[in-house]
Amino acid sequence: MKKSFSIGIAGLGNVGSATVKLIQKNSNLINSRAGIPIKIVAVSARRSSMKRKIKISEYDWENDVLNLSDREDIDAVVELIGGADGIAKSLVMSSLKKGKTVITANKALLALHSTKINKIIMAQKTNFYFEAAVASAIPIINAINTGISSNQIKHIKAILNGTCNFILSDMKENNSSFIVALKKAQKLGFAESNPNFDIEGVDAAQKLSILGMLAFGVQPKLKNIYTEGIEKISNLDMTYSERLGYSIKLFCIANLNNSILDF
Amino acid sequence: MKKSFSIGIAGLGNVGSATVKLIQKNSNLINSRAGIPIKIVAVSARRSSMKRKIKISEYDWENDVLNLSDREDIDAVVELIGGADGIAKSLVMSSLKKGKTVITANKALLALHSTKINKIIMAQKTNFYFEAAVASAIPIINAINTGISSNQIKHIKAILNGTCNFILSDMKENNSSFIVALKKAQKLGFAESNPNFDIEGVDAAQKLSILGMLAFGVQPKLKNIYTEGIEKISNLDMTYSERLGYSIKLFCIANLNNSILDF
Repeated sequence: MKKSFSIGIAGLGNVGSATVKLIQKNSNLINSRAGIPIKIVAVSARRSSMKRKIKISEYDWENDVLNLSDREDIDAVVELIGGADGIAKSLVMSSLKKGKTVITANKALLALHSTKINKIIMAQKTNFYFEAAVASAIPIINAINTGISSNQIKHIKAILNGTCNFILSDMKENNSSFIVALKKAQKLGFAESNPNFDIEGVDAAQKLSILGMLAFGVQPKLKNIYTEGIEKISNLDMTYSERLGYSIKLFCIANLNNSILDF
Repeated sequence: MKKSFSIGIAGLGNVGSATVKLIQKNSNLINSRAGIPIKIVAVSARRSSMKRKIKISEYDWENDVLNLSDREDIDAVVELIGGADGIAKSLVMSSLKKGKTVITANKALLALHSTKINKIIMAQKTNFYFEAAVASAIPIINAINTGISSNQIKHIKAILNGTCNFILSDMKENNSSFIVALKKAQKLGFAESNPNFDIEGVDAAQKLSILGMLAFGVQPKLKNIYTEGIEKISNLDMTYSERLGYSIKLFCIANLNNSILDF
């Protein structure tokens, strides 16, 4: 019988660091719920010398992140690097091919390469988890995959981008201009320094693409999803929408109607 | 390799009939998601002669429901009889002891006998599922069990009784008296002909007891949960709460504070 379940963590940005911290802080709880101890054995990130708020000295450091997929003592590779291609994709693919469990929060990768990933999973019978890729702490992935798996889903309507939601709320509640609200979001760490990905709706479209795959068994190509961001929303729009009794939100919508799937 | 997964359904009331109907209607979808066909092979209920809106002629009929746990051709027993003791309990216990997967929506049984059930599950290594026992279609059981299993839960606050929620909403929105709202709920099929179980808060306490077990690893005894129903809520209460900017709701609350668990 296995005595512990060992993981390697790739990427130590905000999400990666928080993951390490959570595993350290709640280790007793996690171990008792999992039935066996969950142990971080190795970590990897772009720079080993960077100052971090987490203690990683007791873990092996891998300069080459791909080593994580080679190590015999690692059961699961946790990919928190991000980006649809490049090193994140190489790590996920090679880990799955080597039969490792893979856990990722990488929505861009899933939105583009799910078909390829699914093929490897089917061939290797590995486990692949990605709950954190959409709607963070809301368990939507698991709910669609297992909770309502005997239901035919006909409609998805969701707010999936926190940055846009913050900006729109700030514009509405505090009468901020789009630029002021965006800067506030950046200052609070909700928006990236290059926010285009969020405010143009690309991030939301990627997440909708993943939910679409799970709900309808068909993954729409990103370019086939009608995508409109919030860059053109003005305070005048806010004023009129309020006057008419509406709120302006960035919605991700998919409809299944008479076998026609509409994104 | 198994060619199909066979289930036996015990109890053909509202929930049981709807379950059969759903499995029939969505069989292709369910089979493709599960990977193998899910087949109902036998059903059992108090009366075989009753007129039902579902077609059950192609399934074996078991006069003695306990036969479901004996049948070699049944992988999972679905218990939809209800009631903390009696035949429902016997069926669940004997099925688990015989190594069958058990699926139940029986909150009363879980609220009273979870410790006993857990012991059998641990000994037999059987599967036991009960998502529908609390909050129906909201996947709260799965979310606590797997989705947030690496988090320490400190607070539960939930509206878990639909009957009470309907009555309180009707009193507030339509200024109905408690009795009128209750009768409306009964007419619409939301409330039982004997509604005490719901309106006295017992049903809600049972559900909170189950969530408490999952969230905190400790199941409170029902008599130790402070329980107050909605029978004494009057239209005057509604008027005052509205005037003060509040709504009256039946909440299920649990707190973990400095290692002290408070229900």
